[in-house]
Amino acid sequence: MLHQVVNIAAVTVLGVIEQAYFSLQVIYARRKYSVSPPSTTGPPEFERVFRAQANCSEYFPIFVITLWVTGVFFSQAAACVCGLLYLYGRLMYFQGYSESAHGRLAPLYFSAKVLWTLIGLAALGVLNTMCDLHLGLDALQQLCGF
Amino acid sequence: MLHQVVNIAAVTVLGVIEQAYFSLQVIYARRKYSVSPPSTTGPPEFERVFRAQANCSEYFPIFVITLWVTGVFFSQAAACVCGLLYLYGRLMYFQGYSESAHGRLAPLYFSAKVLWTLIGLAALGVLNTMCDLHLGLDALQQLCGF
Amino acid sequence: MLHQVVNIAAVTVLGVIEQAYFSLQVIYARRKYSVSPPSTTGPPEFERVFRAQANCSEYFPIFVITLWVTGVFFSQAAACVCGLLYLYGRLMYFQGYSESAHGRLAPLYFSAKVLWTLIGLAALGVLNTMCDLHLGLDALQQLCGF
Ligand SMILES: N[C@@H](CCC(=O)N[C@@H](CS)C(=O)NCC(=O)O)C(=O)O
Ligand SMILES: N[C@@H](CCC(=O)N[C@@H](CS)C(=O)NCC(=O)O)C(=O)O
Ligand SMILES: N[C@@H](CCC(=O)N[C@@H](CS)C(=O)NCC(=O)O)C(=O)O
Repeated sequence: MLHQVVNIAAVTVLGVIEQAYFSLQVIYARRKYSVSPPSTTGPPEFERVFRAQANCSEYFPIFVITLWVTGVFFSQAAACVCGLLYLYGRLMYFQGYSESAHGRLAPLYFSAKVLWTLIGLAALGVLNTMCDLHLGLDALQQLCGF
Repeated sequence: MLHQVVNIAAVTVLGVIEQAYFSLQVIYARRKYSVSPPSTTGPPEFERVFRAQANCSEYFPIFVITLWVTGVFFSQAAACVCGLLYLYGRLMYFQGYSESAHGRLAPLYFSAKVLWTLIGLAALGVLNTMCDLHLGLDALQQLCGF
Repeated sequence: MLHQVVNIAAVTVLGVIEQAYFSLQVIYARRKYSVSPPSTTGPPEFERVFRAQANCSEYFPIFVITLWVTGVFFSQAAACVCGLLYLYGRLMYFQGYSESAHGRLAPLYFSAKVLWTLIGLAALGVLNTMCDLHLGLDALQQLCGF
């Protein structure tokens, strides 16, 4: 059982460590630019780091959820590949956004494409399992059989 | 195994698509009202769309977690019905809040009620499984047996 | 199967209830200090409550994810103990931050330490399962056998 999800779990833990790294960067930025909580506004340099982490945090649950649904209902390998690409894209996003608002755009488009792929695969896997359950028809397996 | 959770997975994917839709609306609102990142303030029309998405994102993990705990420990059917009602309530919340701050209230109360129901059912399912485990007593099954 | 995760599920539901409590506190603070949505700024008393809930919400998915990965891949008991400590730390954080910005620091360090412990145990459990899968070597079990 665990063997069927251990790689997704590994990607998930990697994602958690990435999020922790982003949070630490916000704490350093708060010190560097003297922006004491509860304030969240300050020089644009600070606000970009703050927003980069906020944006990544906002999408993180969506990412983890689609990673697992894809891994369980579609394919663990496909989920892991997309997962690693997404985490790489988000690292680029964070670094790009920290440097300039424009720098966030290219990695944002990249990670959005990867996320949409994950959403599509998750939906496909779930629909296929539903077909299998209600119609006794495992379309994905049949397609792969050709 | 998968058949016992496939409907919850379907509601989850639907929820993810709803969140993606809310995010796209914020991106359109940023263009329409010329609010460039990292700024998050602007005309009230923009701020309402921005906050509507932020509020829905904040509650999304809580929703998905209680959906799955209810679906696994209480009943998949009950979880799915509440899940669909919640997602409908959040769509209404987003549209209401986009139009006026007051417009968010009725759907907020509705989705809060559904979420509390999910939390209650999740707690009930978990407590029942704990009783079963420690006391050998499956109260829910006994109640349903009457 | 369910018996192996029911205690983690219980801690998760407790965490959800804590988050719901934090949200209610923000609603009360909005009334008390007359900060109507979509605004998120106001007197420091309000902003501290608002940010305390925002910060806890931001970390909540990370907490739940590492709780489950630790509980499934390492040990349910260890996950539950860390989980309860984390939730206690976050309650202290929320109350401390509500009173003063400085009041958030001690519980923040405490809950960060607990979270890093959970991340470490999750990584250890996943690595061990991978070793077991690829090398046929269950290091944790061997260590415990001594
Ligand atoms: N919360 C986001 C939702 C939409 C989104 O993901 N926007 C992209 C493209 S404009 C972004 O990089 N936002 C920057 C940010 O969130 O600070 C926002 O405020 O923009
Ligand atoms: N983050 C929320 C937490 C509490 C909540 O969910 N409040 C409801 C009722 S006042 C809401 O619609 N908030 C509007 C918002 O989050 O912008 C807040 O700032 O209000
Ligand atoms: N979003 C957080 C990320 C980093 C973090 O967790 N910071 C700690 C230590 S400075 C905190 O208590 N932040 C207060 C807050 O989020 O309002 C922030 O803006 O600070």
